[in-house]
Amino acid sequence: MQELEELQQKLLAMGSLVESSIHASVLTLVERRARHAEVVWRNEEHINHSEIEVDDLATQLLALQQPMARDLRFLTATIKINTDLERMGDLAVNIVQRALALIDLPEVKPLIDIPNMARLAEEMVRKSLDAFVNRDADLARTVLLSDDSVDRLRTSVYRELIDLMQQNPPIIPQGVDLILISRHLERIADHATNVAEDTLFLVKGIDVRHHAEAMS
Amino acid sequence: MQELEELQQKLLAMGSLVESSIHASVLTLVERRARHAEVVWRNEEHINHSEIEVDDLATQLLALQQPMARDLRFLTATIKINTDLERMGDLAVNIVQRALALIDLPEVKPLIDIPNMARLAEEMVRKSLDAFVNRDADLARTVLLSDDSVDRLRTSVYRELIDLMQQNPPIIPQGVDLILISRHLERIADHATNVAEDTLFLVKGIDVRHHAEAMS
Repeated sequence: MQELEELQQKLLAMGSLVESSIHASVLTLVERRARHAEVVWRNEEHINHSEIEVDDLATQLLALQQPMARDLRFLTATIKINTDLERMGDLAVNIVQRALALIDLPEVKPLIDIPNMARLAEEMVRKSLDAFVNRDADLARTVLLSDDSVDRLRTSVYRELIDLMQQNPPIIPQGVDLILISRHLERIADHATNVAEDTLFLVKGIDVRHHAEAMS
Repeated sequence: MQELEELQQKLLAMGSLVESSIHASVLTLVERRARHAEVVWRNEEHINHSEIEVDDLATQLLALQQPMARDLRFLTATIKINTDLERMGDLAVNIVQRALALIDLPEVKPLIDIPNMARLAEEMVRKSLDAFVNRDADLARTVLLSDDSVDRLRTSVYRELIDLMQQNPPIIPQGVDLILISRHLERIADHATNVAEDTLFLVKGIDVRHHAEAMS
């Protein structure tokens, strides 16, 4: 039905805003420029507005169309994915808040892993939504693999910063904030992973949520 | 309908498991005893299993009963709340992982704020679900107030540990882990807040998600 198409387009548009927010939040940090933060605040409003719209539209379709089987699964997945997208937007806000605090403190080190995490996370958001709207199980699976890379980067960020803080205690506030930012990026990647899992369930009817071995 | 009652009971049972996991995860930390962790692993399996059951049952009811208006809203809220509960269970697992790492390191300080955060979070889980099943808007509102207290405790934990680490750099690994635990508790409280917000929407038809001023 045409309304489902409209709903998909809305989700994709939300996804683009989320990607843009992740990008701008980490750019605020890397370039140490507060003006990039404005993008995040502006997107945040749009994302929150879209969340309510998508929820209303999906619930209306459930009520009015009384869809069966596949369309029903699509609509319940949409309700979940909508929540995931909104949380990713919140996490980008959390990142930019830490980034703005960090700009006022001396620089600790050139950032490499965190921008890489951000790039991966943005890509995961885009791919997971593309996989969802195109019912593409293979693409959804690549998102789950990227999540492992993000987790490895998170561990590497953690270890490096613990070492740096121990060598140079005055940078503890910056070190802790950078660790927190890496955790926010990890959680964004987790939400994209949820979207990919919902997609696999929709397409394949297999529930990979709690038995990753079913993936292979 | 009777199935809705069954669904509510399943959500309440999941909520009890989540409370028990939060409690056991922080007890592992406070009493420095690894055996408390076993409760969390055991609950985790049950929670994951319940998540799938609740999802399936809710989707079946949407398909077979073709519910209108209020029941429909209840079912879409259930699908969201189910996800929130499962994530809270995951966060208790994250806490217990950090707690087990901390047990092997020297103790840093007597813990006061973190156990208080845990108590509040457990209470928020219970109250938010009670509010949901009893359609109790007043009770749901108390959850939103508790969330502010949790946020204040999180900030206090952060500041205290940054100070302690700067005074005594060898405890940096413990300090960072304790900050991460406080963040996990904060996120559990956020999920309980989501449940309370879904309840207010269900009962009052007002969407408090992005305009808290509508609360008063």
